[in-house]
Amino acid sequence: MIADRMKPLVENNSAIRMMFEEGKKMAAEFGSENVYDFSLGNPNVPAPECVKQALVDILNEEDPVFVHGYMSNAGYEDVRQTIAESLNRRFGTSFAGKNLVMVCGAASGLNIILKTILNPGEEVVVFAPYFLEYGNYVRNFDGRLTVISPDTATFQPNLAEFEAKISEKTRAVIVNSPHNPTGVVYSEDTVKELAAIMDRKQKEYGHPIFLVSDEPYRELAYDGVEVPYLTKYYANTFVGYSYSKSLSLPGERIGYVVVPDEMEDSGKVLAALGIANRVIGSVNAPSLMQRVIARCVDARTDVEAYDRNRNLLYQSLRSYGFECIKPQGAFYLFVKSPEEDEKAFCAKAKEKHILIVPGSSFACPGYVRIAYCVSYETIQNSLPAFSALAEDYGLKPEA
Amino acid sequence: MIADRMKPLVENNSAIRMMFEEGKKMAAEFGSENVYDFSLGNPNVPAPECVKQALVDILNEEDPVFVHGYMSNAGYEDVRQTIAESLNRRFGTSFAGKNLVMVCGAASGLNIILKTILNPGEEVVVFAPYFLEYGNYVRNFDGRLTVISPDTATFQPNLAEFEAKISEKTRAVIVNSPHNPTGVVYSEDTVKELAAIMDRKQKEYGHPIFLVSDEPYRELAYDGVEVPYLTKYYANTFVGYSYSKSLSLPGERIGYVVVPDEMEDSGKVLAALGIANRVIGSVNAPSLMQRVIARCVDARTDVEAYDRNRNLLYQSLRSYGFECIKPQGAFYLFVKSPEEDEKAFCAKAKEKHILIVPGSSFACPGYVRIAYCVSYETIQNSLPAFSALAEDYGLKPEA
Repeated sequence: MIADRMKPLVENNSAIRMMFEEGKKMAAEFGSENVYDFSLGNPNVPAPECVKQALVDILNEEDPVFVHGYMSNAGYEDVRQTIAESLNRRFGTSFAGKNLVMVCGAASGLNIILKTILNPGEEVVVFAPYFLEYGNYVRNFDGRLTVISPDTATFQPNLAEFEAKISEKTRAVIVNSPHNPTGVVYSEDTVKELAAIMDRKQKEYGHPIFLVSDEPYRELAYDGVEVPYLTKYYANTFVGYSYSKSLSLPGERIGYVVVPDEMEDSGKVLAALGIANRVIGSVNAPSLMQRVIARCVDARTDVEAYDRNRNLLYQSLRSYGFECIKPQGAFYLFVKSPEEDEKAFCAKAKEKHILIVPGSSFACPGYVRIAYCVSYETIQNSLPAFSALAEDYGLKPEA
Repeated sequence: MIADRMKPLVENNSAIRMMFEEGKKMAAEFGSENVYDFSLGNPNVPAPECVKQALVDILNEEDPVFVHGYMSNAGYEDVRQTIAESLNRRFGTSFAGKNLVMVCGAASGLNIILKTILNPGEEVVVFAPYFLEYGNYVRNFDGRLTVISPDTATFQPNLAEFEAKISEKTRAVIVNSPHNPTGVVYSEDTVKELAAIMDRKQKEYGHPIFLVSDEPYRELAYDGVEVPYLTKYYANTFVGYSYSKSLSLPGERIGYVVVPDEMEDSGKVLAALGIANRVIGSVNAPSLMQRVIARCVDARTDVEAYDRNRNLLYQSLRSYGFECIKPQGAFYLFVKSPEEDEKAFCAKAKEKHILIVPGSSFACPGYVRIAYCVSYETIQNSLPAFSALAEDYGLKPEA
């Protein structure tokens, strides 16, 4: 009954989403306080108070026909202008409202970017570990994915392999910093080197190669680390942003795409993005939430809460003998599996009611992702289970 | 810079959307009271008070982490169950929550349906006049559109041509009743005949042919006319519903898709729809609006207001000598152009600040669409301009 291209998607349904469903069932069976669900990047920190206040104020102050009505497919002009000005203040950019298209979250943003630029058979480069959905998005437009293998020492992008694997067919490169699932932030030096490689390759092949920066975790950076704004380093850059994490609104599907004036043919590209938004069926980003964003443009989630979680979980797991780099951003730990088959490790963790995602769901087997966007109490309560798991594997506590 | 498949979309951007942009510019130049913008199906009747009340109550009563968080890609279970029970009460169906997938409006719903069922090269049948975006949705999945020519006497579907044009490659048939742009409602007899033809053709070709019912106008029916619920007449039916018109929430992108148990392999089809929702980048329907729907499931827009508009505009245009069938539903008049080239007629109307859409935007040249989802005053104010337009064409007032 279903289309041939859908069959593998149904058969290999997202392991992360399956675990989310599983977690809900286990919570119902054992009580949610007895299940340590680290499977999904679903923020536990509530949206900042500004969001509720903005919603109430809009409902009281603005015309409902305007607030809930159609607007341009690219979004309300005033909302886009407000966001552009906020970006300019924070990153020294020079965007106007016309440089932005409001979208239904980062996933939709990536889809309309790829619909706008990708021809069948063209290649999109990603760096493992990577969010496997990228592959589905690329295949939505009959593109092909080129995967750069992970540098498991640092989880910074493997730029030597990158340069070797860019080909005449390469149309775009997707990067994600702060990074899911490792928490790595690309340094300015990394970004400059990446941009230099892409510039050389653009000249060599005589056609644009787009950088697509998937940035839902931009605001989640710890210890004062800076997240470079990529349009300043490379002209043919799309930025895909989402408020899912920065304002804890993942269910609301609200974000934007930025196209800098420096991109070749930026006006036509922006027009195409608006049309792609319409034609893939999103039509426009949800209207009320667009208006909320304009009123909360500089509001942020409680990053300190995630930082506390990060420190407690990182230090505890290290003390039990698990191996892991310390994340600089996002809300994930990417932990080396104590046995080669990390799916077996996830299954053993599940016996202790710990739900974590195998690294093979990010094209990086041998590791597991632990999403620490949960309550501090969940982490505290889970520690005896993690400790017992380490003991089962005979891990040596740190000296 | 943009993909080859996007180029025709950019070059032939939606005439309706272009006119919407044009209307905003003209309103700024001439004052909105002096521009009669009948171009877009953007409801002028505000959302019912229930929507605002529900929003406020949810914000005060429910946990923000739940309200704005991820849920299953198919939507909140309780919301889907509430809608299913409302449908059962109203239409004598027997749906459960599992038969529904919440989607980002009807456009997104149609896209995930087509992604779920359509293989490259397969055909989707539509009846002219039809919403041209259907063609874009079908092409998103490399399908081909088969257009049945209009029956301009009644604007009911031309079932003889339909039966002749269904082929071995036909995978789906899209219908839309109450109908955009004609306002026609398919009678029960029409539906039964359509279903009988499709049943015969399914048997003849030995594979399912899906009926896709695009129903954003279901609640907008006048003079007590009944809109048959299609799953009761044909098992392999998808219903795509939107709250854009029924609750005046077009900017919010909220609706659902129904799959009845009677559809072959309905469980697998429903699973695939949820996955398609995710992979297409929508991920899920906006969460807060889902929760609003559960609290406003039986609320309706002010249909009387549209009915008043319908009567005033229909009677006035007829009295000036325009030819038009009386719509039974939706909020459009489909008027015969007084000159063969209806685009020239639209241009002349625009000189009088009347914005209307050429029928060629619905594959039905020689006609124009007038969207009367505007204020009563706009219609009143526009009448002298329509009257003058009729005089310019030498139309004879009705006897």
